[in-house]
Amino acid sequence: MSATRPRRLEEYGVEAAREAIRGVAVSTPVLESPQLAERVPGTPTIFLKLENLQVTGSFKVRGAANKILSLTDEQQVKGVVACSSGNHGKAVAYVAARLGIPATVCVPEWVDPAKLEAIRQFGSEAVVYGRTYDEAVARSEEIQSERSLVPVHPFDDPHVIGGQGTIGLELLEQVQSLDTVLVPLSGGGLIAGIAVALRSHRPGIRVVGVSVENAQVMFASLHAGRPIDHPEEETIASALSGGIGLDNRHTFELVRDYVDEHVLVDEDSLKEAMRFTVKEHHMIVEGGGAAGIAALLAGKVAECGERVAVVVSGGNIDLDLLMRTIS
Amino acid sequence: MSATRPRRLEEYGVEAAREAIRGVAVSTPVLESPQLAERVPGTPTIFLKLENLQVTGSFKVRGAANKILSLTDEQQVKGVVACSSGNHGKAVAYVAARLGIPATVCVPEWVDPAKLEAIRQFGSEAVVYGRTYDEAVARSEEIQSERSLVPVHPFDDPHVIGGQGTIGLELLEQVQSLDTVLVPLSGGGLIAGIAVALRSHRPGIRVVGVSVENAQVMFASLHAGRPIDHPEEETIASALSGGIGLDNRHTFELVRDYVDEHVLVDEDSLKEAMRFTVKEHHMIVEGGGAAGIAALLAGKVAECGERVAVVVSGGNIDLDLLMRTIS
Repeated sequence: MSATRPRRLEEYGVEAAREAIRGVAVSTPVLESPQLAERVPGTPTIFLKLENLQVTGSFKVRGAANKILSLTDEQQVKGVVACSSGNHGKAVAYVAARLGIPATVCVPEWVDPAKLEAIRQFGSEAVVYGRTYDEAVARSEEIQSERSLVPVHPFDDPHVIGGQGTIGLELLEQVQSLDTVLVPLSGGGLIAGIAVALRSHRPGIRVVGVSVENAQVMFASLHAGRPIDHPEEETIASALSGGIGLDNRHTFELVRDYVDEHVLVDEDSLKEAMRFTVKEHHMIVEGGGAAGIAALLAGKVAECGERVAVVVSGGNIDLDLLMRTIS
Repeated sequence: MSATRPRRLEEYGVEAAREAIRGVAVSTPVLESPQLAERVPGTPTIFLKLENLQVTGSFKVRGAANKILSLTDEQQVKGVVACSSGNHGKAVAYVAARLGIPATVCVPEWVDPAKLEAIRQFGSEAVVYGRTYDEAVARSEEIQSERSLVPVHPFDDPHVIGGQGTIGLELLEQVQSLDTVLVPLSGGGLIAGIAVALRSHRPGIRVVGVSVENAQVMFASLHAGRPIDHPEEETIASALSGGIGLDNRHTFELVRDYVDEHVLVDEDSLKEAMRFTVKEHHMIVEGGGAAGIAALLAGKVAECGERVAVVVSGGNIDLDLLMRTIS
């Protein structure tokens, strides 16, 4: 275990994060979905935790806010830098705008145009660089050292993990007697935070990570027993792309130790889930955000129990792309 | 006052309706919208009551469920008939399917194809008839007497009003210290139910009705002092079309007596509001559902107070039509 990893769950500061980010992120609503429950045998009650309705359209604003609010005044004046396939960048740009501090966001060339536009509209400098996520990361690290900026990591940072964990605290208040929570999984910040929060309060709740087949670095790393590289293919769940870092300090071990089960979903399942949320719930959910619903519709999770919550993690997708995807 | 109109607000049975419809309709979530508050000077906190996330995609299922559940076994076996521009028909079809009873739904020729398809998918008989809503109503009345069916009126029925009023009860629990509630207005069943519920518990909350310029029969009737006919033009808020009935028994007087203020919104404001909910909240909201947001964005409501709730009443719109409307 890395020396920098907090030794106790409380040290991720989920409770403190909740107070800190109030007024920047909103407490998102939970929606019961009888429509989904009807499609999942043996699971009478399913709740959707709607982070697609979060400000900036994804959960990422929670972690970004908690991190940036933890910086000193001096650090805030200099500003922050982030690398992102979109949602994290949009969140950092939003928080920076709200706090009136400068932010630079590096994105790979294949970034969703809607997300890139949003980053710029919030007044951040957007640097479009690299054909892969890793190339964009390298550029952000150059900028960080050139300009002495504080990096806001998209997942592997205790403050970011603590911020995402506030979703777990809200869920505990919003849904009584939860049996299982399904959470989209990529770098692991979201599920690590939620698992830390749930483990601290209700250790019996089962946490299931949902990765996409075409971007399963964490899944492969867990099987290898250590963070590894793993080839990726294109996926409609672009928010779930990217490595976990060979020098991963937090999320690999948290996911390994506190996530109970892992499942994989394919592209067709993701598209079916996106179609389902438009038709049945009149909500626009991006591919990565729909991963939990996809896992349930595809029958990937056995014996969920009586009461299941699915974290719908984001809604940032270009409307034209959505139309092409679900038609 | 008509002899059939309950003399006391309690007689609309809003509390009983809440118990009755549990398990058929869901308790819809409330979302805080800092994005909207930022656009409305002087109103720091705005909540959206998301009936677009209700089963069947609109609030109508509440009233339909409360009415149909009030029928005798014998009446339920024979079945029900309804006339609807779409949402009410979809709601009646859903409730009938859930309870296993037959339903016939008359819709005018200009019905949204998505709503017509939904009515049929729930197993109801859909009768497409007439160029106007009134012609479809006339056909539904013929069918009612031919087949001895119970009519489920879209708004002018105490059970329907009581069912819609459950939104008011939920709002009182979900949002503390409400100052103002904005509600889309057409036949008046939704706002009458909500006003009855609020008046019974928190009479100080201001209720604002939002009508569309192109379909302002209730607005014109209030000015005339009695239910009148009023010419309509085409509107993107098709769910808000239709008369209130020259023989109106309930909603005209309830709206007259318990709604504090009325505003009108035009087509451009509705489209802007639909665009806003897609861009900022990743939700698909139909024209009528967006009326309250349109009123706020257009600055139609002065001095809302500190805490405002907007009822977003429905999300049933064809995705192609939405794209054309907001692009």
